Amino acid sequence: MTSPPTDPSALHWDPETFRQHGHQVVDWLADHMAGIADLPVRSRVEPGEVAARLPTSAPGEGEPFEALLADLDDVVMDGMTHWQHPSFLAYFPANASPPSVLADLVSSGLGAQGMLWSTSPAVTEVETVVLDWLVDALGLPAAFRSDGPGGGVIQDTASSATLCALLAARERVLDGAGNRDGVPQGLTVYASAHAHSSLEKAARVAGLGSIALRSVPTDADHGMAPAALAEAIDADLADGLRPVMVMATVGTTSSTAIDPVAAIAEVTTERGVWLHVDGAFGGSATVCPEHRDMIAGLEHADSYVMNPHKWLLVGFDCSAFWVADAAALTGALGILPEYLANAASASGEVIDYRDWHIPLGRRFRSLKLWWVLRSYGIEGLRSHIRAHVAMAQQLAGWVADSDDWELAAPHPLSLVCMRHRRDDAVAERAMEAVNASGNAFLTHTRLDDRYVVRVAIGGWRTTMDDVRGAWDDLVAAATRIEGVGHG
Amino acid sequence: MTSPPTDPSALHWDPETFRQHGHQVVDWLADHMAGIADLPVRSRVEPGEVAARLPTSAPGEGEPFEALLADLDDVVMDGMTHWQHPSFLAYFPANASPPSVLADLVSSGLGAQGMLWSTSPAVTEVETVVLDWLVDALGLPAAFRSDGPGGGVIQDTASSATLCALLAARERVLDGAGNRDGVPQGLTVYASAHAHSSLEKAARVAGLGSIALRSVPTDADHGMAPAALAEAIDADLADGLRPVMVMATVGTTSSTAIDPVAAIAEVTTERGVWLHVDGAFGGSATVCPEHRDMIAGLEHADSYVMNPHKWLLVGFDCSAFWVADAAALTGALGILPEYLANAASASGEVIDYRDWHIPLGRRFRSLKLWWVLRSYGIEGLRSHIRAHVAMAQQLAGWVADSDDWELAAPHPLSLVCMRHRRDDAVAERAMEAVNASGNAFLTHTRLDDRYVVRVAIGGWRTTMDDVRGAWDDLVAAATRIEGVGHG
Repeated sequence: MTSPPTDPSALHWDPETFRQHGHQVVDWLADHMAGIADLPVRSRVEPGEVAARLPTSAPGEGEPFEALLADLDDVVMDGMTHWQHPSFLAYFPANASPPSVLADLVSSGLGAQGMLWSTSPAVTEVETVVLDWLVDALGLPAAFRSDGPGGGVIQDTASSATLCALLAARERVLDGAGNRDGVPQGLTVYASAHAHSSLEKAARVAGLGSIALRSVPTDADHGMAPAALAEAIDADLADGLRPVMVMATVGTTSSTAIDPVAAIAEVTTERGVWLHVDGAFGGSATVCPEHRDMIAGLEHADSYVMNPHKWLLVGFDCSAFWVADAAALTGALGILPEYLANAASASGEVIDYRDWHIPLGRRFRSLKLWWVLRSYGIEGLRSHIRAHVAMAQQLAGWVADSDDWELAAPHPLSLVCMRHRRDDAVAERAMEAVNASGNAFLTHTRLDDRYVVRVAIGGWRTTMDDVRGAWDDLVAAATRIEGVGHG
Repeated sequence: MTSPPTDPSALHWDPETFRQHGHQVVDWLADHMAGIADLPVRSRVEPGEVAARLPTSAPGEGEPFEALLADLDDVVMDGMTHWQHPSFLAYFPANASPPSVLADLVSSGLGAQGMLWSTSPAVTEVETVVLDWLVDALGLPAAFRSDGPGGGVIQDTASSATLCALLAARERVLDGAGNRDGVPQGLTVYASAHAHSSLEKAARVAGLGSIALRSVPTDADHGMAPAALAEAIDADLADGLRPVMVMATVGTTSSTAIDPVAAIAEVTTERGVWLHVDGAFGGSATVCPEHRDMIAGLEHADSYVMNPHKWLLVGFDCSAFWVADAAALTGALGILPEYLANAASASGEVIDYRDWHIPLGRRFRSLKLWWVLRSYGIEGLRSHIRAHVAMAQQLAGWVADSDDWELAAPHPLSLVCMRHRRDDAVAERAMEAVNASGNAFLTHTRLDDRYVVRVAIGGWRTTMDDVRGAWDDLVAAATRIEGVGHG
């Protein structure tokens, strides 16, 4: 081997080549945006079909950029389910609005890693400020602002945020002994039966086990019954167990059921139990004052998570997590090796976000939140939310008026849950027919032991015409299936 | 309030507006790339300085795009420490190469969320295939390929990957009882004193506590001593404790010390202990056959992590994590609520990556790994690595020849650790002077109880001139400081 060069510049694109290829990618995306409504929403590939189009190994020599770009169309696109399609009504939306996409490009291009304040101060400070903005914009309690003991941090997902809440709560109960000596038996956590599965996952990860999880009964609206919660906690206390955390949900995944936070907070405050509130989807709605009833009582919560990357037009991943007492979080997650020691951290004047979550490294994710808040303004975000809520109410009216379908749950936000009046199997097959058509994409859940179709409105491109189309298709498919089945 | 519109299109940029603003952002980044060498590497702002330039609340009405773009220069740039600067020689590099940046733009623009195969099949299949490519490209054991019981997944960081390895190991030892009943006392984990702090963080998170961590003595090169490891495990076994995992490191953070994997694997295999190998930084080097000695024995490891987002030209975040037995990982992390049930998952024919890590949602991160591998080709990546290794060896020669400085550790890769021959305080002050100048950015560690300056070479823009400049500045600063101090 000859001596390698110590100037590897020739390996890389120069700035003008980046400019040229960057414009090509932007053009490709702009064309994709313009044509997306004509694509099938759900991918039609079979398992292994995309993989089979790829070579079995990486190339020895580099390929021209045009080959990479061409393979987006030739290899990738058939395998995409289009979350940004106007008729994507599945799961919950994951809005990648145009300003967010471009802010994320800036983040990728700057390539800064904000594990510590000192490793790129703007990464930390923009995040802190913008999460304070969001506290005010969403009508959250001032205790979550960074100018007191509390503060916010961007996590990748609500699953990770919930795990961090549980770790902070665990160490508060144990006074740090869990981190030191390991987790003792007998810790308990509480949530409604409709809470997100990430809580059980967190209980496993954090060493409490599924055994720790108390599934609290719900009322007819699928919201947690506070009296049942009090009873469950008191029974555990009487048994010598140690309640660690209650998770209330404002907008469950199944049906956007709203747990009564204020009444739950009375129970937790009285008993000194950490209250974490999960507003992953629903939390975006409180940018509108008329939706703030659902977080009444949040001033008594210890932590709160909502995902701007769902309904608030910020591209995945951007999950906003606040704590009323940041020291409880950093006490649970902080650790300082010598190679990360620095004067700014030692001064205590700065935030080092690596101590606020599991990963050490972090990208400049607040840029996209910052650009979305500024590009739309509070009023623009309100209009965005209100449009979807209005669409959902209109759809709910059609369902209520239908002879074949009925509402399966309240619809306080923009998710409408419906079931077939006579036959779950018809509902299931009708939904699958709609999804297979590529015209719309819906998902399901089970409520009251019935098969329930969820129509989750909230994508930035979705209009009433798209909702109408999906509904008409579902109705027609069910009629056809029922006619054949019973005909 | 008047009835809200159900066609919110007017709120959003149309594709042509996206195209126009996209070109503006690409141009801004291209100009930034062209001028980056003239910027100070480390930000000079004081705590609070960036925050003070921001308004105290989000705007009510949306702002024009030009205002957002202008504030990158007016608010953000002074607060950036430039990880992509050619003279960024701190920590380890976090390379955001141009093809990676553009692939990430495609990911942001497509906005797909790949929690399940079915939620966008290409997101999963490209990832699986490209991680198989990487197994071959890096000379890793075939057991990590997806065509057997093993497989790879992209995690955000090595910290998260190490936590997942520990959770899989924990549940293997406990036969799933930890997830069910909580973690019992008496579990232990092992790593060298120079292992990354993320292992202790993981032990805390996973409920084992810091008490579980055995810091195994190292030899003179700072690599783990296998005999000492065997002794530590056997002592714990004799005490009735349950060894869960050994973490070997190939390229420690402090000094790129290489733990002897083959000898360690003999110890773990004989005792049935999970072996996790951390190649977060060093793992990129094995794209070159001449660096594969350091992973000899990896075929006996249960899991391995290396970060393409450090030295392999893929932008943060992209941490590649492989397991030899994927079932151990998904057994530890899997959970299936009804609202995620789907035919493809039920068939068992597909991978659902949500069960391979903590978060539920995930972006299309494999795109940037795919584009980097194809754009550079294996040979391009080898040239990239070899250039930095050659630079480091040249620098190490200068240090060895110096009257004032000496090498503080072996330098098998591209990190050179040096200390002042006479005075640690001079080294510390000299490094701070270099950093304050903005001409280069270095960080430190402690080895053998001495203050050690780390020069971490590996950025895609770094050439020998940059390394020479940083070295000359450090030498000159030390001479000046020593002259004053002792003069």
